[in-house]
Amino acid sequence: MERIRIVLCRPSHPGNIGAAARAMKAMGLSDLRLVAPERFPAPEAEWMATSAVDVLQKTTVHSSLHDAIKDCAAAFALSARPRERSPQVLGVRQAAARAIELNDQVAFVFGNEVAGLTNEEMFACQFLVHIPASREFSSLNLAQAVQVVAYEIFVAAGAAVPSGRTEKLATVEDIEGLYAHLEQAALDSGFFVPASGSRLRERWRRLFSRVPALEREEVNILRGLLRALLAKRSGK
Amino acid sequence: MERIRIVLCRPSHPGNIGAAARAMKAMGLSDLRLVAPERFPAPEAEWMATSAVDVLQKTTVHSSLHDAIKDCAAAFALSARPRERSPQVLGVRQAAARAIELNDQVAFVFGNEVAGLTNEEMFACQFLVHIPASREFSSLNLAQAVQVVAYEIFVAAGAAVPSGRTEKLATVEDIEGLYAHLEQAALDSGFFVPASGSRLRERWRRLFSRVPALEREEVNILRGLLRALLAKRSGK
Repeated sequence: MERIRIVLCRPSHPGNIGAAARAMKAMGLSDLRLVAPERFPAPEAEWMATSAVDVLQKTTVHSSLHDAIKDCAAAFALSARPRERSPQVLGVRQAAARAIELNDQVAFVFGNEVAGLTNEEMFACQFLVHIPASREFSSLNLAQAVQVVAYEIFVAAGAAVPSGRTEKLATVEDIEGLYAHLEQAALDSGFFVPASGSRLRERWRRLFSRVPALEREEVNILRGLLRALLAKRSGK
Repeated sequence: MERIRIVLCRPSHPGNIGAAARAMKAMGLSDLRLVAPERFPAPEAEWMATSAVDVLQKTTVHSSLHDAIKDCAAAFALSARPRERSPQVLGVRQAAARAIELNDQVAFVFGNEVAGLTNEEMFACQFLVHIPASREFSSLNLAQAVQVVAYEIFVAAGAAVPSGRTEKLATVEDIEGLYAHLEQAALDSGFFVPASGSRLRERWRRLFSRVPALEREEVNILRGLLRALLAKRSGK
């Protein structure tokens, strides 16, 4: 459970940070990270955390989402509304099971109370997680969404069988490096022109995010191939 | 879902009543009953309910738990702490499934924020429901406990996650074409020499075979990129 972190992006209300900490602690989670919170530390956060102030004391503040998740093997973005284009969509129960299976650093990433996650934040994650909810009114309060996620993680951890994986998983940074290499190759070869490129970028994010437990060596092989292709071209 | 009610016994904080209403509405529940609340109606309840004030407007106040559940086919008492003697204990997931199966009026009954349910209230119910939580700190906030219960009820009621796939899946032929292209690129760029290549071949087969529902367009994008990289090189 100590490998699972909760990341809140730009939370407006310190009370919600405290309530999220309490929700986490009740489910055995303790790694809370904040990206550009409006106000933190704050007394309202401590009031709402009640006995979970120890979680708040360890909470770190980051200037960017990338900084908060770069060492993770996977990041799961929460979104209430369906998106036309997104990383692979998982239900929260599947996502929790996947996070436990990975048995490595993973992050669940929540957006601002009103606006949610930006597209950029969402695409920095490998999965989009959906909490089943009423069609008419699907808006969970931030801390309640954290509660449901933390609860599913706790249940999934209880049900988990250890995997015995020995390969090193790719980190977010490794995978971002692959995307950068793909982009460079696509531009350099004329496969796409920058103006039309965004859709392609999303396509390969969607593709590679669907590989369960993507390994560092696998990413390295693809990057090595692209590097070799690019080097040969520029060498001529 | 309209057959499932949430009953709060002696809630101290009107804000928790509002937060519970919001948690319910997000999961399609709307029948909230209060037994001897300290204060209701109250502005704090409306603030916390946000768009779920319609649930509060229909909320009824009862003088006893019996009065709030007497027409139910079953009542499920929530308790954080284990009890030496109790009605049949169920996990919240089982309890939600049972409630849906009954297909009749059922109640989920929550105690006061600090003291929980009295023994008498618990034994007025047929089941004791346990929300899995950390041994060290199992205290969920009242509205968060309502959220987890409402979520499990919603999931048990079979709310589907929309999938709506329209993309054409890649055929074996498409995927073999991708492998052939990768191999050509690897040889052509000097990334591997034929004698040592078999391990690499296996690696990318292993990688791409793990993508669930690999789409034809995804394969085409990767092949297109490799084709562009190779064509430019031989063109020089």
